[in-house]
Amino acid sequence: MRITDLKTTPVAFPDPPLRNAWGVHAPLAFRTIVELTTDEGITGIAETYGASVGSVLSSESEPGQGPFAAARRVLIGMDPYHLNRIRILIPSPRVYQAVEIACLDIIGQAVGKPICDLLGGAVRDRVLFAAYLFFKYDGDDPWGEVNTPEAMVREAEMFVERYGFRTLKLKGGVLPPAEEVETIRLLRERFGPEYQLRLDPNAIWSVETSIRVAQQLEPYDLEYLEDPTWGIAGMAEVARRTAIPLATNMCVTRFEDIPQAVRASAVNVILGDHHSWGGLTAFQRLGHVCATFSLGMSMHSNTHLGLSMAAMIHAAAITPNLITACDTHYMWLQEDIIVGDMFRFEEGMLRVPTAPGLGVRLDRDKLARFHERYLKSQERMRDDTAAMRRRDPNYLPLRPRW
Amino acid sequence: MRITDLKTTPVAFPDPPLRNAWGVHAPLAFRTIVELTTDEGITGIAETYGASVGSVLSSESEPGQGPFAAARRVLIGMDPYHLNRIRILIPSPRVYQAVEIACLDIIGQAVGKPICDLLGGAVRDRVLFAAYLFFKYDGDDPWGEVNTPEAMVREAEMFVERYGFRTLKLKGGVLPPAEEVETIRLLRERFGPEYQLRLDPNAIWSVETSIRVAQQLEPYDLEYLEDPTWGIAGMAEVARRTAIPLATNMCVTRFEDIPQAVRASAVNVILGDHHSWGGLTAFQRLGHVCATFSLGMSMHSNTHLGLSMAAMIHAAAITPNLITACDTHYMWLQEDIIVGDMFRFEEGMLRVPTAPGLGVRLDRDKLARFHERYLKSQERMRDDTAAMRRRDPNYLPLRPRW
Repeated sequence: MRITDLKTTPVAFPDPPLRNAWGVHAPLAFRTIVELTTDEGITGIAETYGASVGSVLSSESEPGQGPFAAARRVLIGMDPYHLNRIRILIPSPRVYQAVEIACLDIIGQAVGKPICDLLGGAVRDRVLFAAYLFFKYDGDDPWGEVNTPEAMVREAEMFVERYGFRTLKLKGGVLPPAEEVETIRLLRERFGPEYQLRLDPNAIWSVETSIRVAQQLEPYDLEYLEDPTWGIAGMAEVARRTAIPLATNMCVTRFEDIPQAVRASAVNVILGDHHSWGGLTAFQRLGHVCATFSLGMSMHSNTHLGLSMAAMIHAAAITPNLITACDTHYMWLQEDIIVGDMFRFEEGMLRVPTAPGLGVRLDRDKLARFHERYLKSQERMRDDTAAMRRRDPNYLPLRPRW
Repeated sequence: MRITDLKTTPVAFPDPPLRNAWGVHAPLAFRTIVELTTDEGITGIAETYGASVGSVLSSESEPGQGPFAAARRVLIGMDPYHLNRIRILIPSPRVYQAVEIACLDIIGQAVGKPICDLLGGAVRDRVLFAAYLFFKYDGDDPWGEVNTPEAMVREAEMFVERYGFRTLKLKGGVLPPAEEVETIRLLRERFGPEYQLRLDPNAIWSVETSIRVAQQLEPYDLEYLEDPTWGIAGMAEVARRTAIPLATNMCVTRFEDIPQAVRASAVNVILGDHHSWGGLTAFQRLGHVCATFSLGMSMHSNTHLGLSMAAMIHAAAITPNLITACDTHYMWLQEDIIVGDMFRFEEGMLRVPTAPGLGVRLDRDKLARFHERYLKSQERMRDDTAAMRRRDPNYLPLRPRW
């Protein structure tokens, strides 16, 4: 079996005005759908960043340019099983990951096995996810405005009631630290000790603030505090001063970062992301490095569609030491591009797909509509700071802010 | 596809009187052949230790006992693709590895792909091996006695001439250190700067001796010095005092050992071995941990037959950062149990098998004869110290000896 073509389709879709340390989610999110075809008539699919994140796209305005165009030249004629060679020939992990998943989707369809089985098989049938709680502005969505600790408790109640989540991740770095501590206090009070709570201020606090806020958070039994401050050195200093486990997807984002983080004892938990680390095999290997060095493992998420959702479930299912709930933005998504129903959380979990390959297929009509929305958009990337500055022209994404 | 049975067949075969830090290879070496059958009529095969190493066998005298009998109970009814579950249910890496390879052999035959393709594919078509040079007694073999530096040069010449090796690994820890330094000096003089030289005294030197001997060895441009002394602390002290890269297969033999070795900067190169680390996937992951922590990677060998040889080639082929020659004892083997010709080194390399699965099949007649030899033997395990004490009743395997 040989790869005969690679095609990318940029898509855009509405995103609620979710707040974060950079500003606020812009009205449109962008992703790219990757399709690999073979001489045996099997097509493999995958989803990756829009042009906004990592600039991995060959833009339609520059045919033959960009990393995916270069990847296409490498791939044509290759056997989709030969992922070790392909990984070396496509050095960008963000490009490679989509190619890997599309290749695994091809192989899975060819042999009649879900992707997880091609990587040793699932160790769990259902994967646990966290409710991803965002402060937000009022928008064209059913959630309304959430800009106070009390409103956040209502948001959490809605997600818990609807989907049965048992882990609540609060995206912080938005309100002053004391208000986010108060939010955590209210969440703990409302949900009791069986729920896991996490807070992620996206490294917007100074080291000193992080140490003080961590102390204020200690009574509320956080599962972990994610990226309170910037960098391995800063995180290491905070780690020395708090009993709360520290997690990161900001100071350890590549395998090269791990030795430094280990030597500095900077973090307890690494949030992997197959999109940025280099595919499902890289996620699996990160899991093994974490196990080797007694680091915890969790999963990071960007705004994404159902192809990524399926891949994230496979990644979690094959990683035995991923025993905490994974992050996903999927509960904020209104419409997907996959055939059939959207993924639906039950008891905070999603079932591991059992159909051959990735386990989801592209709905061509929806894909066309999502692509059309991309073509009509004035934007080509999501810019959260620009979106915030449209609301407040004086806004600056300071880091540290507090 | 479901696993229907697991069968182990212990075998014995002649081994030349090769000397090492424990004594001398006993006249018979022992291995175990593992066969997994499936409901689709495909049989997967693998090779593992004899009862001597790691005591992993269910002895024929104790039916239903031992780790392989326990593994058999786990495996019956399982899908050979579900290796992540199987790994957790068979916690001994030495038992699991044989099961994994047999499962991959089954899958490879089912889908028509060599094992390496099931693990991302080979990054090289031929795998480099080192000539494994042993001091030895005269025996029922073509090599004669090799107990002086000069005789060792002749042994090396024979291996280089016959098989084209470009890397020479001297098993040391046998003669006093000065004579082994002299051997290295003569090998470097005879073979010139293009050849790679390694010395492995199996941790028989004290730290002080190791530091002094390393200094004496520095002019001869060793690729690495393997396990001069015992333990991570000892190796770390030697590493601080020499410019020669240090390698180990003795102080880092499990993933759990790696953090300590990294923190102590004890070694530069880890010799992996799929038999003891937990299969081809573990070898592959070790390669990735080494890459992450800027450690070099090489391959360890015990005395083995062709099923292990095939698996070792696959392991090396899928591990991109394994850029040094692998160890193998195979050049000392007189007869194999595989169908057709034995593996033959050309330019010091072996070709990666391309047939589906492991790439070699069992010759049933040879297997029967090798098993018969096992049944007739008084021994059930190779005991190098006992073999040495039959030559010299006063022999003690001191460590350190020098």
